[in-house]
Amino acid sequence: MSTNPVVKKLGRRLRLGVVGGGPGSFIGSIHRGAALMNEQYEVVACVLSSDPGRSVAAAAELGIPRGYRHIEDMIESEATREDGIDVISIMTPNDSHYKIACLALDKGIHVICEKPLTNLYHQAKSLEIRAKKSGLQFCVAYAYSGYPMVRQARAMVEAGELGEIRMIQCNYVQGHLAEMSEAELQGKNWHMRADIAGEDLIVADIGTHCYHLCSYVTGMLPEQLSADSCTMVPGRSATDFTSIQLRYANGARGSFWVTQAAAGAEHGLYLRVFGSKGGIEWHQEHPNELLFRSLGHPAQLLTKGRPGLYESANRATGVPVGHPEGYREGFATLYNDFADAVSDTIKNIRNPLIHFPPIEDGVQGVRFIEAAIESNRGNGMWVYIEPKFTNCY
Amino acid sequence: MSTNPVVKKLGRRLRLGVVGGGPGSFIGSIHRGAALMNEQYEVVACVLSSDPGRSVAAAAELGIPRGYRHIEDMIESEATREDGIDVISIMTPNDSHYKIACLALDKGIHVICEKPLTNLYHQAKSLEIRAKKSGLQFCVAYAYSGYPMVRQARAMVEAGELGEIRMIQCNYVQGHLAEMSEAELQGKNWHMRADIAGEDLIVADIGTHCYHLCSYVTGMLPEQLSADSCTMVPGRSATDFTSIQLRYANGARGSFWVTQAAAGAEHGLYLRVFGSKGGIEWHQEHPNELLFRSLGHPAQLLTKGRPGLYESANRATGVPVGHPEGYREGFATLYNDFADAVSDTIKNIRNPLIHFPPIEDGVQGVRFIEAAIESNRGNGMWVYIEPKFTNCY
Amino acid sequence: MSTNPVVKKLGRRLRLGVVGGGPGSFIGSIHRGAALMNEQYEVVACVLSSDPGRSVAAAAELGIPRGYRHIEDMIESEATREDGIDVISIMTPNDSHYKIACLALDKGIHVICEKPLTNLYHQAKSLEIRAKKSGLQFCVAYAYSGYPMVRQARAMVEAGELGEIRMIQCNYVQGHLAEMSEAELQGKNWHMRADIAGEDLIVADIGTHCYHLCSYVTGMLPEQLSADSCTMVPGRSATDFTSIQLRYANGARGSFWVTQAAAGAEHGLYLRVFGSKGGIEWHQEHPNELLFRSLGHPAQLLTKGRPGLYESANRATGVPVGHPEGYREGFATLYNDFADAVSDTIKNIRNPLIHFPPIEDGVQGVRFIEAAIESNRGNGMWVYIEPKFTNCY
Amino acid sequence: MSTNPVVKKLGRRLRLGVVGGGPGSFIGSIHRGAALMNEQYEVVACVLSSDPGRSVAAAAELGIPRGYRHIEDMIESEATREDGIDVISIMTPNDSHYKIACLALDKGIHVICEKPLTNLYHQAKSLEIRAKKSGLQFCVAYAYSGYPMVRQARAMVEAGELGEIRMIQCNYVQGHLAEMSEAELQGKNWHMRADIAGEDLIVADIGTHCYHLCSYVTGMLPEQLSADSCTMVPGRSATDFTSIQLRYANGARGSFWVTQAAAGAEHGLYLRVFGSKGGIEWHQEHPNELLFRSLGHPAQLLTKGRPGLYESANRATGVPVGHPEGYREGFATLYNDFADAVSDTIKNIRNPLIHFPPIEDGVQGVRFIEAAIESNRGNGMWVYIEPKFTNCY
Repeated sequence: MSTNPVVKKLGRRLRLGVVGGGPGSFIGSIHRGAALMNEQYEVVACVLSSDPGRSVAAAAELGIPRGYRHIEDMIESEATREDGIDVISIMTPNDSHYKIACLALDKGIHVICEKPLTNLYHQAKSLEIRAKKSGLQFCVAYAYSGYPMVRQARAMVEAGELGEIRMIQCNYVQGHLAEMSEAELQGKNWHMRADIAGEDLIVADIGTHCYHLCSYVTGMLPEQLSADSCTMVPGRSATDFTSIQLRYANGARGSFWVTQAAAGAEHGLYLRVFGSKGGIEWHQEHPNELLFRSLGHPAQLLTKGRPGLYESANRATGVPVGHPEGYREGFATLYNDFADAVSDTIKNIRNPLIHFPPIEDGVQGVRFIEAAIESNRGNGMWVYIEPKFTNCY
Repeated sequence: MSTNPVVKKLGRRLRLGVVGGGPGSFIGSIHRGAALMNEQYEVVACVLSSDPGRSVAAAAELGIPRGYRHIEDMIESEATREDGIDVISIMTPNDSHYKIACLALDKGIHVICEKPLTNLYHQAKSLEIRAKKSGLQFCVAYAYSGYPMVRQARAMVEAGELGEIRMIQCNYVQGHLAEMSEAELQGKNWHMRADIAGEDLIVADIGTHCYHLCSYVTGMLPEQLSADSCTMVPGRSATDFTSIQLRYANGARGSFWVTQAAAGAEHGLYLRVFGSKGGIEWHQEHPNELLFRSLGHPAQLLTKGRPGLYESANRATGVPVGHPEGYREGFATLYNDFADAVSDTIKNIRNPLIHFPPIEDGVQGVRFIEAAIESNRGNGMWVYIEPKFTNCY
Repeated sequence: MSTNPVVKKLGRRLRLGVVGGGPGSFIGSIHRGAALMNEQYEVVACVLSSDPGRSVAAAAELGIPRGYRHIEDMIESEATREDGIDVISIMTPNDSHYKIACLALDKGIHVICEKPLTNLYHQAKSLEIRAKKSGLQFCVAYAYSGYPMVRQARAMVEAGELGEIRMIQCNYVQGHLAEMSEAELQGKNWHMRADIAGEDLIVADIGTHCYHLCSYVTGMLPEQLSADSCTMVPGRSATDFTSIQLRYANGARGSFWVTQAAAGAEHGLYLRVFGSKGGIEWHQEHPNELLFRSLGHPAQLLTKGRPGLYESANRATGVPVGHPEGYREGFATLYNDFADAVSDTIKNIRNPLIHFPPIEDGVQGVRFIEAAIESNRGNGMWVYIEPKFTNCY
Repeated sequence: MSTNPVVKKLGRRLRLGVVGGGPGSFIGSIHRGAALMNEQYEVVACVLSSDPGRSVAAAAELGIPRGYRHIEDMIESEATREDGIDVISIMTPNDSHYKIACLALDKGIHVICEKPLTNLYHQAKSLEIRAKKSGLQFCVAYAYSGYPMVRQARAMVEAGELGEIRMIQCNYVQGHLAEMSEAELQGKNWHMRADIAGEDLIVADIGTHCYHLCSYVTGMLPEQLSADSCTMVPGRSATDFTSIQLRYANGARGSFWVTQAAAGAEHGLYLRVFGSKGGIEWHQEHPNELLFRSLGHPAQLLTKGRPGLYESANRATGVPVGHPEGYREGFATLYNDFADAVSDTIKNIRNPLIHFPPIEDGVQGVRFIEAAIESNRGNGMWVYIEPKFTNCY
């Protein structure tokens, strides 16, 4: 990233407001850092807690200029300022995304929203329509699509290097919920509460990442799924394990193996895709490598920044070969790409290039979660997901 | 292996006859080399082809003393010689195992038999009864159980280091059948013919390895399965992909992802097991390593020959730390362990220690294959497998 | 990093000015991003080119408020402003570091300076004295010391987990200069010009990183060295390969193998240290892992964020276990640690905790470079380095 | 290895006699197993101990037909038998190799000899002349040259895929002598006694492997070396660490880092070679992989058995892709290749193809050891090694 397209176009950086992700949260500093890291945003406004007093205090503590007491105030006030925010990032609990996103869109503010987009499908669809009418940009923070080698994988599939896709496997095997925490026992961890985070929590929280990653890389959406979700940890009410099988229209098969209760595991997001000509493997824990093996050839160990990568991979990396990039840089790439489209929109450039996961991806993700719930209710029966192909971006 | 228990006990090496695995076959040289490598067997008799003339010629070409024209002749003749074979190794097509094993047992010859034990469950059960009555030793060549780190994994589960088992995943992802070969097109590859190798070929050929590996390591047999087998390669009649979900009595879940049609893949046998306290991971392609991660501790990268392994792992390795051992050594460990039990039996030692996969494991494997066929016929419906726990060995 | 110690102490973020690292440079965006990422600095002033017009234009293009024409102007002007910079980051060519750092220190500005500190030892020593008298903080950007697992390695050595140190090996094997570039042919790449970057370029550019990394991790400085530097690429005047042997007072041995001309290589910074009780291995390309193997125990694969790490490792990571961090985060840790000490100094807190490489490390690095030049002139003769132990930080 | 060239040519397997490597030794079972594994040898005679009674008992215990009391007896007696040995394998202490090899050659017996060939250079040269005059085959057991991917590396260099060789690094970092053992304290471990195993033990024992591996892969012998050997473990008299720098006629540089005192290390043999076009990396602990990275291309992860390997690599593997092979198989490849040449010689075929390390390699290895001793005596001064190019094989 030696150039700064946003400042070139606008003569200034974009102004970002954040809601959620206060002190102590993991995702708050990730979002803000991702926005700041490449010098295309400044973070000027925030609501960092549902407690108004704490929200204002936290803003001061982090050195964010305008700390508001309520989200509604922030959106209202920023929308009327000359130097108000261009973009809002939403990282509040899942059941609040819909309302906040609607408010922002209504006030002309571009939106970055955490996954899952909503808990309910009809809200997701309604949001999609609203976003499209608004002419504003909307990104769902499926952050793994920001990794250079994930983009390389997508480009390789698109270019036909794997042939016709036959098999997809995505594992997401975390261990941080292998035991009940005090917060969970007391119902204070909203991620583990079905009323806030959705009925099948493991699917809604990280299963949806698998779904997006597979769709993103293969350009294919499955036709049917069969899910087997359950709860492994005694005393827990939320699901913490799911195994989901997928069938695609062309006969391809997919498989997800997803949990947060695998004692000792770290992150464990692992993707492999095989086609009629070859296959790729990617481990999020070693994100800068992609193994490509094809019929009749030596295996290639593709790495970020080396010769032979597609432009879409190269544009997602900002450090030379051999200098590892991680989760935060992947996230930052989403912010870069969003900034590019937003500044185009501000400059009235038609059809900006969209390199980030758009709202349609979020809608599909919600539909997938609902289908998994339905299959589980039927003891793993095969359920149709009403596939439609992702928007090309 | 600095000692030679067989020669110590018998004053001579064991005499082995082999049927199947002629020149050009992969598995023939594996079995014979595994027997020879540790100086506990000599290979003295063979039938190396169903064509009598070729069989005799092949024996001469390999320098095996007694090459027979027919299996029946060999068993008959060896059984009456003073210096006849102690052990027969069967590596003929699957549908012939039953008859050959019966003949051998009837003549007092100990048996090593390739997997699957038989194509039909009733044959497997009948063989089990016959073997038990005979007092002879019977090993099913589930060779992956011979790797030191697989034995370490089993010992760790047994010792409770993983806590209660919750999740098991076994992948077996090969690529050598990603395209139709000339032999397959002409029906000359018996591995791809349902009439010889079984109705659901991918399950019978390598799915059964996953089943055994998981049972062997965890000591648990699943209660139910749901299978989704299909054919990926156009023009093929046999199945070449299966995804099988498993449910265990204690609520644990298992998942197999098995294919030989993953273009570009090599061997891809990969096991992981998580319990309430920790988990292990093992890749057959790097067989001398086992990753163990548990709650509250740094991860351990256990390697063959290092301090801290269980005796059962150490007894399965013959080379010092850092000197890699491979597939042939794993296979040889099965032969070593079998030799130990056979020589005990010859010396009338009661209750020899059994460290190899006994006939019961083969029977279970056949039942698993049948259950997968049944589930597939019901579009992946959950099928009960009538589990019974493995013999302790 | 859920807290923000700087804003807590000062009620604002630190103000940073940068010199060097204009558009197109790699290191410029690294430094600025590292400062911004954790919300403890704002970048308010800069000189981005030795061409005054370009410098101002580049500042505008990046959205940095105050772009100056000359470094002297910037330091002069910022020192007199109410809201002038607290810290300057120097990433200009090596031979200019001394003068700029002197100017900044004289005006009361804390300094972060790229390595090597200077080309000449007497300048380095003079700067050290000046910095100490000033009471200001001075950091040399030995960025690899910012990686969590490097800090873990240091803490383990310090705690005696490796026993007495016996052997140290550090490789730094890059490939980006395996061929002459157009810029190099025309003398336009200052990194390859001895008059600017120092007589033994490979030692000055990256050999010095090896020296620092080994000293940092082991707490030991070598007594003697023997160097064999040479030029591998035809047509090049600068050295591009060196092999340096080290002897320590306690009999330990060190070895560096350093090049930028290894065709095909990426970054290749690799450290291992063995003591009487065990050893560690670290690869910069997989920075979040540290292998620890000791006598009588299973190997440990230590990873960022897992249980069992020292506090110094944990404080250098800002993302949960399994979310990879890379080069930019390592760099950002230096900026964090520096911000902590600078804000302490501003608040007149005596003896702030120093977690970053201080000026003494830079001085040692220059002495090391000189000793390597001397040894090379003597065909690899052993040269004494006049070791003194690093400041404890 | 689906064919058996020896039996085809001779109508029988080769007859092997072994001296040294009795029960309890590591290398004895390695040699005998390597000979047996591929069905080209039978082991018919042996002297397994310098104690005549133990030698005979050990032969019985292992089931080897003819156990002799003395080496001279064995050679004498076997040379006169109709069915006497064709080949002798020598794995006695280093200082006895010369005499035994002379005896065997004089009686017309082909020789496989452990490294180092001798302790003294004049003995090595004398043996070379004797071997050449005899018309017999002579192999020095540099076993690492039997690994398929080492052969691949050699073929790639030979084919020019790396361009002109510039840099070679070979590490051999073992840990099993990181502490004094009881046997060593009492002078009972001959490997640690300079009077038996040579003056600079670490160089003679495993440094010589590095030397051979580098020569074998690159086809180049160094012109000069500088060595720094020392003793790390308190109380030990033998050297246990060496760092050796090499200079080649074309300006290339080599570096060895060799020890058996690296606490916690396993085997640690690691080779990398860079040329003007690309480089390769190979780890003995993962022997079936070879990383090849070259200018302008994605990296290739070459694996045993995959498409794209040279014939010399493929002929050194006997198991399909993905089935790992280890140290014993590498050793067995040497035995295979030797059997091929010996049976050619027996059949009076002129100029048999030589794929194993011939006696010239052993002689060079002894010269290398002497040069290292000389350099150490001169505090690491550069010493000329009188290079001559290896015989092409």
